[in-house]
Amino acid sequence: MLVVMQHDETEAQVARVVEIIKEMGYEARPMPGAQRTSVGLVGNDGRVDGSQIESLDGVAEVIYVSRPYKQVSREWRQENTLVTIAPGVVFGGVEIPIIAGPCSVENEHQIVLAAQQVRDAGASALRGGAFKPRSSPYSFQGLGKKGLELLALARRETGLPIVTEALDEEGAHLVADVADCIQIGARNMQNYALLRLIGRLGKPVLLKRGMAATIVDLLMSAEYLLAEGNTQVILCERGIRSFDPSTRNLFDLTAIPLVQKLSHLPIVADPSHGTGLRDKVIPMGRAAIAAGADGLLVEMHPNPERALSDGGQSLYPEQLTRLVREARAIADAIGRTITVPSGTGSAAEG
Amino acid sequence: MLVVMQHDETEAQVARVVEIIKEMGYEARPMPGAQRTSVGLVGNDGRVDGSQIESLDGVAEVIYVSRPYKQVSREWRQENTLVTIAPGVVFGGVEIPIIAGPCSVENEHQIVLAAQQVRDAGASALRGGAFKPRSSPYSFQGLGKKGLELLALARRETGLPIVTEALDEEGAHLVADVADCIQIGARNMQNYALLRLIGRLGKPVLLKRGMAATIVDLLMSAEYLLAEGNTQVILCERGIRSFDPSTRNLFDLTAIPLVQKLSHLPIVADPSHGTGLRDKVIPMGRAAIAAGADGLLVEMHPNPERALSDGGQSLYPEQLTRLVREARAIADAIGRTITVPSGTGSAAEG
Amino acid sequence: MLVVMQHDETEAQVARVVEIIKEMGYEARPMPGAQRTSVGLVGNDGRVDGSQIESLDGVAEVIYVSRPYKQVSREWRQENTLVTIAPGVVFGGVEIPIIAGPCSVENEHQIVLAAQQVRDAGASALRGGAFKPRSSPYSFQGLGKKGLELLALARRETGLPIVTEALDEEGAHLVADVADCIQIGARNMQNYALLRLIGRLGKPVLLKRGMAATIVDLLMSAEYLLAEGNTQVILCERGIRSFDPSTRNLFDLTAIPLVQKLSHLPIVADPSHGTGLRDKVIPMGRAAIAAGADGLLVEMHPNPERALSDGGQSLYPEQLTRLVREARAIADAIGRTITVPSGTGSAAEG
Amino acid sequence: MLVVMQHDETEAQVARVVEIIKEMGYEARPMPGAQRTSVGLVGNDGRVDGSQIESLDGVAEVIYVSRPYKQVSREWRQENTLVTIAPGVVFGGVEIPIIAGPCSVENEHQIVLAAQQVRDAGASALRGGAFKPRSSPYSFQGLGKKGLELLALARRETGLPIVTEALDEEGAHLVADVADCIQIGARNMQNYALLRLIGRLGKPVLLKRGMAATIVDLLMSAEYLLAEGNTQVILCERGIRSFDPSTRNLFDLTAIPLVQKLSHLPIVADPSHGTGLRDKVIPMGRAAIAAGADGLLVEMHPNPERALSDGGQSLYPEQLTRLVREARAIADAIGRTITVPSGTGSAAEG
Repeated sequence: MLVVMQHDETEAQVARVVEIIKEMGYEARPMPGAQRTSVGLVGNDGRVDGSQIESLDGVAEVIYVSRPYKQVSREWRQENTLVTIAPGVVFGGVEIPIIAGPCSVENEHQIVLAAQQVRDAGASALRGGAFKPRSSPYSFQGLGKKGLELLALARRETGLPIVTEALDEEGAHLVADVADCIQIGARNMQNYALLRLIGRLGKPVLLKRGMAATIVDLLMSAEYLLAEGNTQVILCERGIRSFDPSTRNLFDLTAIPLVQKLSHLPIVADPSHGTGLRDKVIPMGRAAIAAGADGLLVEMHPNPERALSDGGQSLYPEQLTRLVREARAIADAIGRTITVPSGTGSAAEG
Repeated sequence: MLVVMQHDETEAQVARVVEIIKEMGYEARPMPGAQRTSVGLVGNDGRVDGSQIESLDGVAEVIYVSRPYKQVSREWRQENTLVTIAPGVVFGGVEIPIIAGPCSVENEHQIVLAAQQVRDAGASALRGGAFKPRSSPYSFQGLGKKGLELLALARRETGLPIVTEALDEEGAHLVADVADCIQIGARNMQNYALLRLIGRLGKPVLLKRGMAATIVDLLMSAEYLLAEGNTQVILCERGIRSFDPSTRNLFDLTAIPLVQKLSHLPIVADPSHGTGLRDKVIPMGRAAIAAGADGLLVEMHPNPERALSDGGQSLYPEQLTRLVREARAIADAIGRTITVPSGTGSAAEG
Repeated sequence: MLVVMQHDETEAQVARVVEIIKEMGYEARPMPGAQRTSVGLVGNDGRVDGSQIESLDGVAEVIYVSRPYKQVSREWRQENTLVTIAPGVVFGGVEIPIIAGPCSVENEHQIVLAAQQVRDAGASALRGGAFKPRSSPYSFQGLGKKGLELLALARRETGLPIVTEALDEEGAHLVADVADCIQIGARNMQNYALLRLIGRLGKPVLLKRGMAATIVDLLMSAEYLLAEGNTQVILCERGIRSFDPSTRNLFDLTAIPLVQKLSHLPIVADPSHGTGLRDKVIPMGRAAIAAGADGLLVEMHPNPERALSDGGQSLYPEQLTRLVREARAIADAIGRTITVPSGTGSAAEG
Repeated sequence: MLVVMQHDETEAQVARVVEIIKEMGYEARPMPGAQRTSVGLVGNDGRVDGSQIESLDGVAEVIYVSRPYKQVSREWRQENTLVTIAPGVVFGGVEIPIIAGPCSVENEHQIVLAAQQVRDAGASALRGGAFKPRSSPYSFQGLGKKGLELLALARRETGLPIVTEALDEEGAHLVADVADCIQIGARNMQNYALLRLIGRLGKPVLLKRGMAATIVDLLMSAEYLLAEGNTQVILCERGIRSFDPSTRNLFDLTAIPLVQKLSHLPIVADPSHGTGLRDKVIPMGRAAIAAGADGLLVEMHPNPERALSDGGQSLYPEQLTRLVREARAIADAIGRTITVPSGTGSAAEG
């Protein structure tokens, strides 16, 4: 930690900062400058709270050097964490799984058909919302428990593992009973009560970046999950707020190599929410793979024109097939592979 | 709703849009333009979901004209809603209450002293966190239930009503038992499960704007509370995310007249979080009153140097006294008054 | 300057950083931490360019403590700079001038009438564009030289000094011949060639904040003007880009006390561009005064319905009268006064 | 254009809007809604200025349906524009040129060595600044005319065409005499005087997106160039402002498919400025190719530790070689190729 003094600081003010740092149990190292003096705090173990120093007379600014997160960092764990949501569906290694499916589970026919199309297209996990966070209280909020049952049915029919969102305590328990991976949505990224609860459920978690979250904010929220003992955490870039209304969100693909440098956790990308535009999902899905994404999360609907939510950004089934094919070519170019859905194996085995 | 067709749309595509609109039970009105055709949807009652139209061939864009919120709008209710959190402490009228107090309740001495200082400075309600949303799982998370008891004690000592935050279901019930007004924090603005629950508790609510929330997003979240039957809702501007690190958040004071035009609900401003800088709280608190704010929410600590959280943005007690004095002068200049804390004001003089 | 090493830095890497700092002629002070080592650079006079250190092996980050601007800073000059654009129209002191007028000069009748209305309303300087930066090459671009002649005529008729924008070298010379203050628009805030040129023209300058400019960026651009020997510089907050389409720009009033702390230059506020909405100009103009603005810049048109540009955000003449009246009340509440236009005020009363 | 009336509009107000639209020479089509009435303007040819309608009583909002740009749009020209800056170096076709080189031209040795390294790495054009826009007036501003001479020398030595920036009128003429492509920097994207001047110089132009520019803003600035008769325009995504300090800018790769849908002009990507971090340039350069970029613009320096500017984001020569190799693999995966520098040809020719 570095304490920057104001230009016109007095010696007494510097001495007071040094004294407080010593009281806190650390060593203080003053550094006079031509413009102003700084005081370095030596020995910070990441737990120093500088707010009391900030408010001392003569202090201009407190700059943090230590990172506020611990267990999620590469410094805590050097090698990649592998998150396995089902046999053969592993995030963080050379293989890249693609998760696809509709925004919402609507009915049995729709979700089973979608699951078959997802599998046929070459994706290896099924997404679909049973509990939907909607900005309007009057919009369709999902089928709830019935939706979870339909997801389980779709899994039985196709063998695809299930990724689905939980919104609250009651729902989290229900989701944990059925899903292979519990999704925490962007709007709940800083719902710390929910993070703590889900951190204790012992299931893999997919944590989406909030719309106003920095990379550090995202890692801090993941830290809540790890602090509860759950290391099976997948991060997800899904676009942040920006000033340009051309797209629904601003898809920040640099987040992928940033997270991979700072953390051992895998990170996937969601080009459907990241752009909000169906015809941008394929190029940006390709770009995510090229940037090094450990997975994709994509919306596909058997009949987007009839979707109850997010129809405008859902791929048609044949578009998903094309995305998987192009993702394979890109993955191959960088020495990785797209995960093959279980049971379909390599056609070569047939 | 207006459906804008692509430049090279065909007659068949326009006909398909017209047909779907009719199927939905509305009237369609095509408007050819020199560049492209649009189709107006006539009779929209605010419940039309355009996503299925967006995905039709030849459609470039769907533009919403009706507003997605209802009960929070000025069109639903013309006159201002008055929110009363205690006798004489009313938001939305000519009088402007000031809520002040520490970021966190720390101990009995601190909160009782703070409450006395708040009252002596001329503010009329006490804030203080018992449950604290912290970005790090390792930071002080608040005293919890014990903190609520201390707030109740501070109220008995000073007569000031209590505003404090709830983070989850269990906490919401505890807070509702003690507080005069339940705060929903910025990070939970789109935690719809919490909004629905708190909407049913029958207590006044102070809903803070999320860091990435537009004004419409804020009103939509308030709509969740009203949809549960609770109209005692105070909105709060507390700064949003921006690219300039000079301040902790970007304090968006235009939100005040914007909300007052669109909605009948009162809106208060929080210059402490809005700027994150102690020496900016007084000028920006004055500015908020001048912009028409229906209240202020301000952090003050008996000893900011020793605060367990947010010390750097907390006012000293004498600064709060100055803020209230200057707020009075500004309020007077625009024909309003600052609420006098109960038991102190002119009543005592009468 | 503080050089933060990576977590796994080696002693040789730290030694290399220390060596390079010494080569640069400064003293190096290593500070080991529990997580990582930092190296302080002692004696920075504000001219250190850290980019070569950033690229050394083992370096995680370079943090600047010294400010990159000099002559604009409060540390360079303690007392406020007063900028006088005409006798009695001074920015930076207790008096607050209001500059008002149409977006564009359209014709003799319009600008002379506007000037009279501005003066009658109690504002003390006239704005009006002769050269207009327009996002479309096909939009009205201003009357050019003819517009400047009409502004001079309006000044003769009313005595009001003129503030008008220059866009390029040729125009800057023409504007300097006529105007009392040369405006540099938001889009040209980082047009350094124009800044240098206008810095040498010896006229007061009003420099608007760019749409993506931080406060430091704004001060750095002003530094270009001061580096050319011109200290008569007024800064202007006019709104920045944000994610909320509710307003044309996000009006950042905290910029006012921020600039006033960091710099000795006066800062005015433009609520017309800052909000883009006529009915928000009065409350936000009041708020700017309450925040401590050293002036206002406001669009008013004799007949906004017929304006050639920006009609939707221009005040009606009677609204300007009301704004000046309310600004007076607010100024009075904080111990300041609104400048009275020359020839109208108390002189007449004497 | 769609005029949305306020909720409580009167019949007379609607009639007035209809009347004004007719006066403007267009047809008006009122559409009553359950909440409010809208009025469509039929026959808009893209030149309607709605600001006078916005200010009519009872009008809530004016929504534009027609696009404000013309000659840059796909609707004006269906097929891609090919921009040729030298024989075999063509932007907008199947081949993808890579432009690389140092931030600034520093001296003969540096730029000639850099050019050779650029060519050896497989890039096909040389970048290097002779005129540098610097945020500080005290920073190195480039070698000016001498720098252009050194660029010409480097071209003679290597055969690589030159891309370099012009900042003002005088410099633009000098640059046009030497360069193969004139760059307009992000800070000058809305310097309309410079756009008009450069539009008339008859040289290919590379126009960088401004830090606060939407896609539509970028296209409008390109329209200035085309309106002067120059269609040889390359657009460039180089990152925009965001709230996350993790990167220098937020690299918006979705801009690539967005621009390619809306316009016939080619678009390249600059991952060096887009991220500001050397170790992110390779993954994000790959991602740009995968997203469909028509070229890359990359900073490389023979000795980044000794660079006079932007050392921290410049690639080492061997990293450029790796980027070109990986870009080739990605291009191949999507059916495109990386342009081979002239004279090196296909190894097959040797």
